[in-house]
Amino acid sequence: MKILSMLLRRRQWTCNSTFLFFVFFAGQRCISQAAAKIDVDFDYDGPLMKTEVPGPRSRELMKQLNGIQNAEAIHFFCNYEESRGNYLVDVDGNRMLDLYSQISSIPIGYSHPSLMKLLQQPQNLSTFVNRPALGILPPGNFAEKLKDSLLSVAPKGLNQVVTMSCGSCSNENAFKTIFMWYRVSKYYCLLFDYFSNVSCCLAATHSKAIHKLDIPSLDWPMAPFPRLRYPLEEFVKENRQEEARCLEEVEDLIVKYRKKKKVVAGIIVEPIQSEGGDNHASDDFFRKLRDIARKHGCGFLVDEIQTGGGCTGKFWAHEYWGLDDPADVVSFSKKMMTGGFFHKEELRPNAAYRIFNTWMGDPSKNLLLAEVMNVIKREDLLNNATHAGKVLLTGLLDLQALYPHLISRARGRGTFCSFDAPNDATRTKLIAIARNKGVVLGGCGDRSIRFRPTLIFRDHHAHLFLNIFSDILADFK
Amino acid sequence: MKILSMLLRRRQWTCNSTFLFFVFFAGQRCISQAAAKIDVDFDYDGPLMKTEVPGPRSRELMKQLNGIQNAEAIHFFCNYEESRGNYLVDVDGNRMLDLYSQISSIPIGYSHPSLMKLLQQPQNLSTFVNRPALGILPPGNFAEKLKDSLLSVAPKGLNQVVTMSCGSCSNENAFKTIFMWYRVSKYYCLLFDYFSNVSCCLAATHSKAIHKLDIPSLDWPMAPFPRLRYPLEEFVKENRQEEARCLEEVEDLIVKYRKKKKVVAGIIVEPIQSEGGDNHASDDFFRKLRDIARKHGCGFLVDEIQTGGGCTGKFWAHEYWGLDDPADVVSFSKKMMTGGFFHKEELRPNAAYRIFNTWMGDPSKNLLLAEVMNVIKREDLLNNATHAGKVLLTGLLDLQALYPHLISRARGRGTFCSFDAPNDATRTKLIAIARNKGVVLGGCGDRSIRFRPTLIFRDHHAHLFLNIFSDILADFK
Repeated sequence: MKILSMLLRRRQWTCNSTFLFFVFFAGQRCISQAAAKIDVDFDYDGPLMKTEVPGPRSRELMKQLNGIQNAEAIHFFCNYEESRGNYLVDVDGNRMLDLYSQISSIPIGYSHPSLMKLLQQPQNLSTFVNRPALGILPPGNFAEKLKDSLLSVAPKGLNQVVTMSCGSCSNENAFKTIFMWYRVSKYYCLLFDYFSNVSCCLAATHSKAIHKLDIPSLDWPMAPFPRLRYPLEEFVKENRQEEARCLEEVEDLIVKYRKKKKVVAGIIVEPIQSEGGDNHASDDFFRKLRDIARKHGCGFLVDEIQTGGGCTGKFWAHEYWGLDDPADVVSFSKKMMTGGFFHKEELRPNAAYRIFNTWMGDPSKNLLLAEVMNVIKREDLLNNATHAGKVLLTGLLDLQALYPHLISRARGRGTFCSFDAPNDATRTKLIAIARNKGVVLGGCGDRSIRFRPTLIFRDHHAHLFLNIFSDILADFK
Repeated sequence: MKILSMLLRRRQWTCNSTFLFFVFFAGQRCISQAAAKIDVDFDYDGPLMKTEVPGPRSRELMKQLNGIQNAEAIHFFCNYEESRGNYLVDVDGNRMLDLYSQISSIPIGYSHPSLMKLLQQPQNLSTFVNRPALGILPPGNFAEKLKDSLLSVAPKGLNQVVTMSCGSCSNENAFKTIFMWYRVSKYYCLLFDYFSNVSCCLAATHSKAIHKLDIPSLDWPMAPFPRLRYPLEEFVKENRQEEARCLEEVEDLIVKYRKKKKVVAGIIVEPIQSEGGDNHASDDFFRKLRDIARKHGCGFLVDEIQTGGGCTGKFWAHEYWGLDDPADVVSFSKKMMTGGFFHKEELRPNAAYRIFNTWMGDPSKNLLLAEVMNVIKREDLLNNATHAGKVLLTGLLDLQALYPHLISRARGRGTFCSFDAPNDATRTKLIAIARNKGVVLGGCGDRSIRFRPTLIFRDHHAHLFLNIFSDILADFK
């Protein structure tokens, strides 16, 4: 069992600059001079490793859980009581800088004092204990809490919002909303232009091949997401061609399906195709896709389940597109703490119970979200994401220049960054080494490593990561 | 605006018997001599009405919410802070005996002291604030809490459990589990023998016709649920014939679909077909259905989303059947506070990520559920449901004898009772009148009124309801 904490603790972090400065040792080492400092008082000041991860206690618990359900996907077991800010603590006492944040679903870090305080206020207890059937018997403050939370960040032009309990219900009910609005024929289908991380929907699951295996699904057309070259600025012409090819295929599919008497009722797309491998496309691509949707009378659904909530530097990633005609529907979950979707007024269901289930979300999540919104505004966390993201991406590009055999296609918007490893095996190994050095990373696509830190991930966290990771790359065999 | 509280308060409730005794006044009135007493100290002692329901404040909030989403299904707005035990308080200060309990999803009443206490314990705060991605990074006590809660009531023979965020995800992933286990052909489909209250699943939504309108779905066969005559004891022969007809159709469908090269991978059934109108079938029917599933190699999924959690007098309604070979999968949600499903070990997915999404449930719900289990055991609430249910059903049968033009097909198991009104209009009117007299009821099917009280609904609550309802029936025009 390696004791890494000493190694990590020995380094002296000093934070005196937001500009990342690399010192090159014969092209082999790359150490950031900028470093970690606590600027959020509840955050820890760095990783602290005591065992390999998963450690002995995690392994024991895995065995125990595996008796109850397939536990092979478990990374390790966590001590959430001890986890704070950007740091996830495991049951073996290891404290790791978390750049994955529960698959991008922890908005303002672990155990944020504002949220802990909220739970301690006696007037809030009832909301956590008495979960209502929101569609028929909402609490008196339901609309008010929606206004404080979701509607305070409603995408332009979308003034209707419906909450759901999870991401898959959000997309499914967003589909239903589009189908009900479309309603011209019995032959509906939806054009997917994405790989969603939706797991439930029998028709829309495409995140990992294993999710779809053996599952029946509807004959819904799937268009290719552009496969661009990075950095985007350097391959403008090639990328424009690739995007044109994909847009053409979208129109071809609509026509082809129409001939099969299957009308495409809607187009769904993620601003950054996340589970599919963090694939980006230009703002122009999305504007043209929106135009195609309008031209063919299709609803335009933007899936912001992973990109939403501020991590790209704007609250919704699709704000970057500057659409004249807003999206028709925008779905969300994860960092928003509740699932759900916004939509335009014209897509409003024309009768009660058309979009309905027992819980329709959870007011306790709206309560937490309203407080998260306060923190985001108070601490200017969108600008923070832009800034810290720039530090992170600049560092990744520098590492890519140094280690092109290990890092390619470094890309990102805000802190929503990623790069490609040469293959799945190297990717998996890099993630495992990083974890043992006190950094939690996640994979996506067939060889990408994605960054999904919380919104309180700051410049010094980026420097801290880059320092650790440059050592890893230097030593990588 | 009617002031009903005086009227209701005037009656003297005395509880001296668990036996329901009716005094008949010329066949017109029917008053229970048994009556309400507080036996759970946090419960209120009766309804208290101040306005019509929905009252002026509710109407105002409806208008406000309707600007944000279609609010036409809203009954009224609630004051959950003031709601306690069996009593739901609305924003106009009306206190109603709640026999619907948020579509059967409040297990031990509103603001139960044990749950309120749980929220106040500092060591539990983190669980409500730090929601993990359970499939990869569960908390250290995850398996332990599953054992304290769900596994402590696992159906016989089903030692595997997976949690989900809501009812529709529970059924969808239960389907997926069966499909993955079946895996013999590309032509899967599932035989439905039920009307589910699942709203998300594009293929499985059948609760209200309005849910399905305009939504594409898979070609999955649907078998008829027996339409029995009640009381079951009086129509044994006719009912046996009806059940035989339905079972025959199930086998016919399996064969018919096989000929279409669509193999039936599983059969799904509710122990009491709930949203479809509280249709019962004999234990023998279900045993035979299970036999058919085994004979044709289909998975057998029992949907206990509405029937589970103790309201029928057993923790799972299908325990009444006395199956030799247990169900393969049992899905749950609502009263269980978390969605999910149990399954046999042989249906275990053979790889990681096959059943997966970001949240995979919510540990804060498992924490609440573990405490609910303690209360159920401590207060012997299953026996309570049997007993109070008997009082309720006996009373309904007596009312049926008195008012056959208004009440028919009174039926039930435990407190999971219902009766038919002559038509939808009368049903709707009866529910509205009852609400204004301080009793919340729900409808199901095309003319049924269903009872879905909490597990702390006791004999005296049944008497209280019966007194109020007999007055309503006597006065009904």
